Amino acid sequence: MEAARHAVLGLDIGGTKLAVGVVTPDGRVSGFLAEPTRREDGHKVTIPRLFALGREAVRIARAEGVLGPGEDIAAAGISCGGPLDAVTGVLLGPLHLPGWIDVPIVDLAAAEFRVPVVLDNDATAAAYGEYRFGAGRGTSTMVYLTISTGVGGGAVIDGRLHRGAAGNGGEYGHIAVRPGGRPGFGNRAGTLEAYCSGTAIAARATEAVAALDGTGRTSVLSALSVIRAEDVAAAARDGDEVAREIWNETIELLAVAVTDLVNILEPDLVVLGGGVTRSGALLLDPLREQVLAQAMPPAAAAVRIELAQLGDMVGVVGAGAVALDRVAPSTVPSTLTDLHV
Amino acid sequence: MEAARHAVLGLDIGGTKLAVGVVTPDGRVSGFLAEPTRREDGHKVTIPRLFALGREAVRIARAEGVLGPGEDIAAAGISCGGPLDAVTGVLLGPLHLPGWIDVPIVDLAAAEFRVPVVLDNDATAAAYGEYRFGAGRGTSTMVYLTISTGVGGGAVIDGRLHRGAAGNGGEYGHIAVRPGGRPGFGNRAGTLEAYCSGTAIAARATEAVAALDGTGRTSVLSALSVIRAEDVAAAARDGDEVAREIWNETIELLAVAVTDLVNILEPDLVVLGGGVTRSGALLLDPLREQVLAQAMPPAAAAVRIELAQLGDMVGVVGAGAVALDRVAPSTVPSTLTDLHV
Repeated sequence: MEAARHAVLGLDIGGTKLAVGVVTPDGRVSGFLAEPTRREDGHKVTIPRLFALGREAVRIARAEGVLGPGEDIAAAGISCGGPLDAVTGVLLGPLHLPGWIDVPIVDLAAAEFRVPVVLDNDATAAAYGEYRFGAGRGTSTMVYLTISTGVGGGAVIDGRLHRGAAGNGGEYGHIAVRPGGRPGFGNRAGTLEAYCSGTAIAARATEAVAALDGTGRTSVLSALSVIRAEDVAAAARDGDEVAREIWNETIELLAVAVTDLVNILEPDLVVLGGGVTRSGALLLDPLREQVLAQAMPPAAAAVRIELAQLGDMVGVVGAGAVALDRVAPSTVPSTLTDLHV
Repeated sequence: MEAARHAVLGLDIGGTKLAVGVVTPDGRVSGFLAEPTRREDGHKVTIPRLFALGREAVRIARAEGVLGPGEDIAAAGISCGGPLDAVTGVLLGPLHLPGWIDVPIVDLAAAEFRVPVVLDNDATAAAYGEYRFGAGRGTSTMVYLTISTGVGGGAVIDGRLHRGAAGNGGEYGHIAVRPGGRPGFGNRAGTLEAYCSGTAIAARATEAVAALDGTGRTSVLSALSVIRAEDVAAAARDGDEVAREIWNETIELLAVAVTDLVNILEPDLVVLGGGVTRSGALLLDPLREQVLAQAMPPAAAAVRIELAQLGDMVGVVGAGAVALDRVAPSTVPSTLTDLHV
């Protein structure tokens, strides 16, 4: 790769995997590395391992010529699940990392890498990554929804990453799709997450299969000892009736939330990411149809609904995008500006 | 009043009333005038009447010293219900003004007043009016919801009026509160507007009273030939059981939508305006309690929920605020900047 001045380091702390990479101002990634989080080790073991991985990414970026000789990263961005305090740079106790209480991750990373460091909610950072370097390039108002173990999201509004008064930017998993319905995580029942997360799809299918007893109906899902969301998608694609019912209800309830987001924010683009969206057209086609039919006509006419483009790299690219944009905007020119220097 | 340089004219075209006034950069209103729209006359009669009213407001502002001798308004803002095209300045066919099709209201007003003119959706303008000069002063991200004949709203996000890709900024009346429920206006059932607008509250109460026949239950509402939303509020306050059921359901469904807005946008303030909110604490107290209990804790901790402050002047002040801000920001300094000139 060609050397890119002002590249940054992206660090993504997931519940199952740590990922790192050096992100250039035009969104290329060098030295992408990932390994299991092994969260049971605790943060005192895992954070030094994350930093070692980051140093290795910088070494690779240098070897690939993305960083010039003697040149260092300009900043680092960290993406992690909440609750966290982005302003003070502290992990308050991420739900996916038991025991990581009040970890001053920004101070620790700044001491390690000796550059400015920023921290953001994983879904917020991912939204910004897709906006800058993924499916959202060229849009103005973009909503990002990630449907995975849980459901989260973020938005870029009129070109600016939305953070909101609480700093999380938005909790789309907690939109009501069947008010008073299934209990979910937290203090509200009938939420998007309670029905449409990978976990919830699997739980609903498991319940549906258990309810077949004595009805004479059958499902290929009955043969599985553990039903996962991807099993439901695969069986629905193959025409299994029970799986289709679960899948159709999932799309219908997802469409309620996406229509709400379209009516409320009038984005030009909705981007759908996360493991559940690997089902592709099986999810996207009926969802698009239902949202465009239900949304207010001017909002429906203005919006596109697309799959995310950054895949497993979204955490690293998102953390990098936030670092590029937030820490040192004046010293991190875009490549377009570079042309005129 | 003291003379205020760069005052603007606000023009509010409602379905039942026209209102005008001269708005100063610090939000004072001079020459506020209102009269019936008489929409049956058609736009060719009504628009000249609106403009004559505007000239009278300017005359009063001059008499009151808000405009200095020989000084004119710096711009004019127009607030009207949609559909309209804010960019081209054309009323496409507002739902509350039958027959007002493709009216180039901005060009007409510019020819009349010989100043720059802007047009905005009434709920969008009202949101900005409350943000600049009403309940929203000093906030950063503010959601405004108006609950009147219909339900609408708008938002200021991080200090900027949100317009969105479709230019309406948001259609909060079309948030789903009971998906698949009551048909409402438009292509979605079970919306906030279908349950909680003044029209819908009255319709639901009328149906509830009709359903009393033969049940032995009674309601004071039965004595009314036409039940209005304010009758339901008054009877609920007086302890009428049927009215209370309708009212409680209204608050519960309103809380679903407001909680969605709080979870999605994480505002520091939600402002509630429109005729239905004249019920005051009867609406605000239980709504606050339910929203704060259901919203995500960080979002709930960051938000206040308050009644609007501009009352009947919100349309004029909103149109004026948009004109002050949008047409000529560089030639319409804030009063704070004036101090340093």
